Amino acid sequence: MSKVLLEVPVGVSGRHVHLTKEHFQILFGPGQELTKIRDLVQPGEFAAKETVTIVGPKGVLEKVRIIGPLRSYSQVELSRTDSFKLGVNPPVRDSGDHHNSPGCVLIGPAGVVTLTQGVIIALRHIHMPTNEARRYGLKDKDRVNVQVGGERGLIFQNVLVRVHPNYRLEFHVDTDEANACLLNNEDIVQVLDPAGERALSMVG
Amino acid sequence: MSKVLLEVPVGVSGRHVHLTKEHFQILFGPGQELTKIRDLVQPGEFAAKETVTIVGPKGVLEKVRIIGPLRSYSQVELSRTDSFKLGVNPPVRDSGDHHNSPGCVLIGPAGVVTLTQGVIIALRHIHMPTNEARRYGLKDKDRVNVQVGGERGLIFQNVLVRVHPNYRLEFHVDTDEANACLLNNEDIVQVLDPAGERALSMVG
Repeated sequence: MSKVLLEVPVGVSGRHVHLTKEHFQILFGPGQELTKIRDLVQPGEFAAKETVTIVGPKGVLEKVRIIGPLRSYSQVELSRTDSFKLGVNPPVRDSGDHHNSPGCVLIGPAGVVTLTQGVIIALRHIHMPTNEARRYGLKDKDRVNVQVGGERGLIFQNVLVRVHPNYRLEFHVDTDEANACLLNNEDIVQVLDPAGERALSMVG
Repeated sequence: MSKVLLEVPVGVSGRHVHLTKEHFQILFGPGQELTKIRDLVQPGEFAAKETVTIVGPKGVLEKVRIIGPLRSYSQVELSRTDSFKLGVNPPVRDSGDHHNSPGCVLIGPAGVVTLTQGVIIALRHIHMPTNEARRYGLKDKDRVNVQVGGERGLIFQNVLVRVHPNYRLEFHVDTDEANACLLNNEDIVQVLDPAGERALSMVG
């Protein structure tokens, strides 16, 4: 019934920040640039040396990594665990979708930025190269179920598929989702065949 | 296929500590007793006013609640998120099963206790009164699948059923598990009928 369609390696996303050039230069100083310390799996994405402090109504998160390159919008991606510490109530959203999302204060060594929105909990998703998607009969914005094995095994439902020629195959979850089922980076999970999964999606 | 067997309210367990009388009195002083501030759902269990500081190789967790009454063993229940902060690697275990579990240092206002073992990540489980279990054809130590709805919907597999005449019906998860699927206390989840779930458990 629940056949495996394909296997996908896991990428666990800790809390992180994306910044516009304008916000970066307020926080780190005019003329400053991001310093790459490590390439991420998705081409062009990298972890920067620079970190910021995030301040919310109830708490502070220190040394939050900036993920480069700089973007056309600033965005803070937290786990729900983080959001309770900060005292904000962010929605679960795909990257860039900020409607009705809360803001926060960012502090860097050279200045402070007040975001009026852009704090989200990332919607879990699979990055899939176009040729791989075609092979498995999937398309951009499809939803699939993902099986995680082991003693805390579970099935993630409604997992968004994002398709682009430049993507590397990778299942992105946040730290709460990873810890709920003991996942680590580069673990392998199984996308279930949607054809055998209709019964499941009708429950709940 | 995945029919609902019964519905169960959720109890989310934050990090907490169970203590022996001896350990409690080292931490809080000879002759001291636990002060109840709130009854929990399971009969006899309560949140105490007293808290301890937990120290591990890499960090500290402050103001960790003691759950009463005092027990025949001391035990620290953390989320995996907490365990990373503390720098320990606890196994996922049912309460009281401490073999090969790490220890930690507990600090109270009157003293310090070094546990050589007893730090665990709680195995998610359903507390079920005996009459309810009988009605649904379940028995102690059975494993079931539990459906959580909503935008972060998922199916928890291998959920332990614990049956006792004094239990109140309740599905216990830790904060990582709750945050992975946006659960809150008293939310309702669905236990799936094991008869329709055999196909699922064969995957992964």
